Amino acid sequence: MTSITNTVLIKRVINNQLLDSKDELAVEEPLEIQLLYANDNNRQAKSISVTMRTPGNDEELAAGFLFTEGIIDNHNQVKSIDVSSLKENIVVVSLEEQVTPDLQKAARNFYTTSSCGVCGKASIDAIRTVSIYNDKEDDICLKAAIFYRLQDQLKKQQLIFQSTGGLHAAALFNLEGAFLRLREDVGRHNALDKLIGNALVNNELPLNRSILLLSGRASFELLQKATMAGIRIVVAVGAPSSLAVQLAREGGITLIGFLKNERFNIYSGTQRVIM
Amino acid sequence: MTSITNTVLIKRVINNQLLDSKDELAVEEPLEIQLLYANDNNRQAKSISVTMRTPGNDEELAAGFLFTEGIIDNHNQVKSIDVSSLKENIVVVSLEEQVTPDLQKAARNFYTTSSCGVCGKASIDAIRTVSIYNDKEDDICLKAAIFYRLQDQLKKQQLIFQSTGGLHAAALFNLEGAFLRLREDVGRHNALDKLIGNALVNNELPLNRSILLLSGRASFELLQKATMAGIRIVVAVGAPSSLAVQLAREGGITLIGFLKNERFNIYSGTQRVIM
Repeated sequence: MTSITNTVLIKRVINNQLLDSKDELAVEEPLEIQLLYANDNNRQAKSISVTMRTPGNDEELAAGFLFTEGIIDNHNQVKSIDVSSLKENIVVVSLEEQVTPDLQKAARNFYTTSSCGVCGKASIDAIRTVSIYNDKEDDICLKAAIFYRLQDQLKKQQLIFQSTGGLHAAALFNLEGAFLRLREDVGRHNALDKLIGNALVNNELPLNRSILLLSGRASFELLQKATMAGIRIVVAVGAPSSLAVQLAREGGITLIGFLKNERFNIYSGTQRVIM
Repeated sequence: MTSITNTVLIKRVINNQLLDSKDELAVEEPLEIQLLYANDNNRQAKSISVTMRTPGNDEELAAGFLFTEGIIDNHNQVKSIDVSSLKENIVVVSLEEQVTPDLQKAARNFYTTSSCGVCGKASIDAIRTVSIYNDKEDDICLKAAIFYRLQDQLKKQQLIFQSTGGLHAAALFNLEGAFLRLREDVGRHNALDKLIGNALVNNELPLNRSILLLSGRASFELLQKATMAGIRIVVAVGAPSSLAVQLAREGGITLIGFLKNERFNIYSGTQRVIM
């Protein structure tokens, strides 16, 4: 198995001195996600995506990616998820007999991986159509003090970041602010796909009673994935983008940014936060 | 024209108080890059990529993307770059009559945008083949003190980040450490494509006498784009990934990470740094 960090010999420049040293790097490697389904005439695994990721939880990453991109709807459609024993950077998702994924329709969504993106307003509409969890009504009320404690808990859990400084994290907390689960990756979208994939595999979707904490900035893509998983509360340590705020407002998501100790900004869904 | 930042009404939580406030957001919008070339039987613009970007310098972004992805080789192949007046999120790159881009070959490279990536070792080989600037020999020698001053200069220039906290920057300096140019974007790959696209349009490639400074982490993708532009010195404020270090070492690039005032790590190409 490939490891998550990698130690390399480097030089450090400190006090105008060149010193021999070691450094721990976050591993970045490609993962190819292949899809196998019975109704395919070729009966061959189809390459769906190649993503640069940090190895680990690859089955979750594949499941989460297929779900947040709208290619599968629920865990019952998945027969098995197998990491190739020969080629460890390939994961094959086999679907149940009766399931035929609409890859043509899903093709548009592939643009949404990371940098690539679908088209502004049109894409927001597309998400709404695709998402099976679009219930905006809920009775969630959270004391502001619950958010104050999230970052400290994240830091305690974010072990790889501490050693490499090179990873993004996505974490889930319950509505009382208790830590549930964390995933780390060189790609922030991968960290979130792993988290959502874990929930899918364990039949825990929708995540409408959880708080999602993002270690960095909140982009359109991350809000889109959160929407797909039915998440209602998204908290980012960094800044949100304009389109992330727009998507949160139109989707009725509470979006918090710039969380730092006892300060934060609320960009959307203020009604769920009580002082 | 779409603006680069966007002011929204928000709530701020400070000292356990909920306050009405304003916040400036980095604008994130999709840009579709279309390619038009004479030898295409359909004689219609082909959609090549949709990227989530911060508006501005869209012509540079399109040119830089097509170049770093290996679809065009030089500025002489480009007849015109036009931002649609009706649909401002579409940019059309028209190629000269005799130029036929090898989109089939280039298709593999599309995986490399941001999260998506081609396959590890194989991809590094692919870059080598595609890059027209692969001369590893040079006489570049830089005093460590030159690097000490880069970050301060970046901060002075990075105006949008200061107002939004939401943008990545890529900047060029000459070998004496003097600031040349900066581009900012919600996507780090876009900031770099804009910078390289600017050089392409102005016939300034290769950038083998410049220092590239990245405001964040150094991923495989960013090193790949730098390689395509012939850049020999890459300095990141954040951590490099394992594959970024591997690519830098195999390509003979000096890769510096964790630059902070008078400290930094050298991951590759130490021979160019003198104390």
